[in-house]
Amino acid sequence: MDRRAEILYHHIDLMKETYIKRLKEFVAIPSISEDLNHRLDVLRALRWCGIRLKNMGFDIRYRIVGTENVYIGDEVPLRTEETAHLPYLLCASLGYDTTKYTLLIYGHVDVKMIAPGEVWNGDPFEMQVVGDFIYGRGVTDDKGPVLGWINAIETFTQCAIELPVNVRFLIDGSEETGSELIPELLRELRKDFLVGVDFVAISDNYWLNMDTPCLTYGLRGVIYFYVYVDGSSRVLHSGTHGGAVQNPLVDLEALMCSLVSTNGTILVPGAYSCVRRPTEAELRQDYFFSQNFETLDFDPATYAKQIGTDALYSNDKVELLRRRWLLPAVEFHGIEKSFDRIGAPTLIPKSVMGKFSLRIVPDQNPYLMSERFKCYLHQMHYRRCSGNRLRVKSFIDGRAFLADHTCVNYRAAYKALEEVWKKKPDLTRDGATIAMACTLEETTNRDVVLIPMGECQDFQHEARERMSVRNYINGIKVFVSYLCNLSAAIIEDSEDEDMRQEDRDRWRKRFW
Amino acid sequence: MDRRAEILYHHIDLMKETYIKRLKEFVAIPSISEDLNHRLDVLRALRWCGIRLKNMGFDIRYRIVGTENVYIGDEVPLRTEETAHLPYLLCASLGYDTTKYTLLIYGHVDVKMIAPGEVWNGDPFEMQVVGDFIYGRGVTDDKGPVLGWINAIETFTQCAIELPVNVRFLIDGSEETGSELIPELLRELRKDFLVGVDFVAISDNYWLNMDTPCLTYGLRGVIYFYVYVDGSSRVLHSGTHGGAVQNPLVDLEALMCSLVSTNGTILVPGAYSCVRRPTEAELRQDYFFSQNFETLDFDPATYAKQIGTDALYSNDKVELLRRRWLLPAVEFHGIEKSFDRIGAPTLIPKSVMGKFSLRIVPDQNPYLMSERFKCYLHQMHYRRCSGNRLRVKSFIDGRAFLADHTCVNYRAAYKALEEVWKKKPDLTRDGATIAMACTLEETTNRDVVLIPMGECQDFQHEARERMSVRNYINGIKVFVSYLCNLSAAIIEDSEDEDMRQEDRDRWRKRFW
Repeated sequence: MDRRAEILYHHIDLMKETYIKRLKEFVAIPSISEDLNHRLDVLRALRWCGIRLKNMGFDIRYRIVGTENVYIGDEVPLRTEETAHLPYLLCASLGYDTTKYTLLIYGHVDVKMIAPGEVWNGDPFEMQVVGDFIYGRGVTDDKGPVLGWINAIETFTQCAIELPVNVRFLIDGSEETGSELIPELLRELRKDFLVGVDFVAISDNYWLNMDTPCLTYGLRGVIYFYVYVDGSSRVLHSGTHGGAVQNPLVDLEALMCSLVSTNGTILVPGAYSCVRRPTEAELRQDYFFSQNFETLDFDPATYAKQIGTDALYSNDKVELLRRRWLLPAVEFHGIEKSFDRIGAPTLIPKSVMGKFSLRIVPDQNPYLMSERFKCYLHQMHYRRCSGNRLRVKSFIDGRAFLADHTCVNYRAAYKALEEVWKKKPDLTRDGATIAMACTLEETTNRDVVLIPMGECQDFQHEARERMSVRNYINGIKVFVSYLCNLSAAIIEDSEDEDMRQEDRDRWRKRFW
Repeated sequence: MDRRAEILYHHIDLMKETYIKRLKEFVAIPSISEDLNHRLDVLRALRWCGIRLKNMGFDIRYRIVGTENVYIGDEVPLRTEETAHLPYLLCASLGYDTTKYTLLIYGHVDVKMIAPGEVWNGDPFEMQVVGDFIYGRGVTDDKGPVLGWINAIETFTQCAIELPVNVRFLIDGSEETGSELIPELLRELRKDFLVGVDFVAISDNYWLNMDTPCLTYGLRGVIYFYVYVDGSSRVLHSGTHGGAVQNPLVDLEALMCSLVSTNGTILVPGAYSCVRRPTEAELRQDYFFSQNFETLDFDPATYAKQIGTDALYSNDKVELLRRRWLLPAVEFHGIEKSFDRIGAPTLIPKSVMGKFSLRIVPDQNPYLMSERFKCYLHQMHYRRCSGNRLRVKSFIDGRAFLADHTCVNYRAAYKALEEVWKKKPDLTRDGATIAMACTLEETTNRDVVLIPMGECQDFQHEARERMSVRNYINGIKVFVSYLCNLSAAIIEDSEDEDMRQEDRDRWRKRFW
């Protein structure tokens, strides 16, 4: 640990209460992007960050998707008519020193809505600190980490230490609705804002456990399917008509059941094609940083207890992680338009819609997979000889991601985690999807590192979403240390850069 | 047609507008029994009938279920605390002449709630007459028929013609919630109110078509099932956990699918045991009143058009009717507690509940069938080796019913229909369930006739529930004629009564 870090860490400890107070202010903005009524709040949250960054010396621009690449001014005007222009993206730049490397940080300010069943102690948007935990909607996903980065950068100025890298911030207001239009905007930004970016960092996922920090180098992609079965033109009485008419709900359930076997294997032909095999090393043996699936801090029994289930497909650690990270998975989420309210109606629904998602892994082609599933469903429906009509819609919400976790970017982050947490971090994958990881890697052609701030039990998107004060404060220290290591690591590493380029190409080769 | 009928019919025609106005007043009471907020309205509707009947000379008693057999007074007191005592039953008696026969009429004043998806032109409780149709919640189920009976009986007084039979009215306020406590109350009523009843009539089902009146002699029973699959203690993110955990929704759908094959055959062993075979005569050949399934006014193509489907299991008339009336059927209604709201959540539900019903037919034992289904579901779940927990609840909501349609009661009704409609009525069964048909037959040990007033396209329980003015007015004439025929028929019939008793015993033999 160099002298700089020592000063910075000390300052962060002193600022602890201020950082928590700041997060409370940030969380108080109910920036729910799914809910049109809260779209102005999303803008407010972006502006909240914008003002803070501007005060730190950043150049601020708010960009709108779908219109010209407009400079709107320092503050987003909060007139209602503008809500249609969402999503906005906040682009902030600090430092143009060509002798320094440039880091791009991505995060989002929007949060999930409070679902009807969620039980909170008090208002989810009024942040509370209880014991070592901070509770509130968005504290861990992703307001805590976003503010963490801002705090980390501010620390340098406050301690009068020169920022070791140029920083670019990309702050999204539409992540929870799929960042649909962002890739288009990024293509525009490539002409100016993204020029010269050397590294990308995202902090929007979670540890594998409660105690060991981790770096994440792989993600699954996701395709979402809507399966509509349309039956009669009106709801039918099951007594009068039961047995005479093919029930759309029966057709739908049969279709959904035809997707997976009892042991969770996907039955669609080609569902496992192109799945990149993990090396034996990754699974069982020594690996880079002496990490592999077997040495990871993960215990199936503890895991089962954490999620409160007796229904794990496997109790073997490696097999379980393989299922969560390396294999595609189909999950059913719900059925719309059946008689799903409380009560015992005896009606046959006239049309129903089933929702399921398919997680895909490197090197699977999402377009091909989507088509395979659609064809299969139509085939299965045809075989049932049902007179009901089938329609299938699919949405590719994110591709799989796999980084070269031996690159400079990961080394710098690894060292930072080790230094702050005083233990070797886990090198993990994650079964979830961060569409922007892939998009940013492609757009910038740079390594993207995922540095999670929260733990596995942070209940993101759930009731009583939380983050420990420990993780929040140490997270800021990790970011500070990472910024310092980044330039140092590059210098250390530059000698064997040619050799490493080969490795990188191997990892980066496009999956499809 | 005798002279009496002529006078009565003429009077009914004169009263047409009054009858419609009366129905409007009755429909305006939103007597939704499912909704606790409308329980007082159910009482209001009962009282509305009570006052009307009292003015006609009936003895009125309101009975409460679950307390002593109390006489409350002429009017139901409408204090909120009493709502807990529901359901009330209105018992009304007119005539104690031992030289006359006694007819028991059953009907109900409660209606179904307006479902969220129902689109009406205006307020469903503000009855509208458009063209030949009366629209409004309850007009056909069952306020129209109930008021029809009341109007029919009133006609005799107004025309100064002696009522040919003694009348007993049983008016229910809880039919749409399953008349759960009524059988218990009926056992009490056997001691007084039901003494001396000779015939029972119910008008609470529908024609097979739009043009030909019918008499119904058979009904299916129904058992309702709730299938719960409980998984993890909290909702799980499908990215992070997908593929590792058994999804309760997958288990549930697989269970539901294991119940029926693609052609609608029930796969539960014993599902078709004890099904009473129809005689060849009933299906294809000449039958009593020259009626059989083949001669019925029913066309599969028209039927498919009426219900707006291309998904009939069969296009053969007899086969289709067999499936609707003579065979058990499983129908799926909905799935509760999955992610059934609009949107694309990527969560695994923590526990889900599927709802399906089983229609049973004569001579199936509902208790046995219920147990068979429960065992089968548990067996199927066991085979899946799922760690999720299964619970199955079942409710027997009504048994199958089969009447001797050659008895005096049916002859009297048949003749009345023929006389009023000037055509031979259809003799039909119905796939739906009227639990009270069976209960009343058992309690009184008398023949129960089902005389539908509405047509097949009356949209009961649906948006724009309706009844044609023609059916309403002619229905009243049919009731009047039926009352006249009843005594006449008995006299004609009494000579071969001994011979007929044998037939009746054959029909009536308990199914299980």
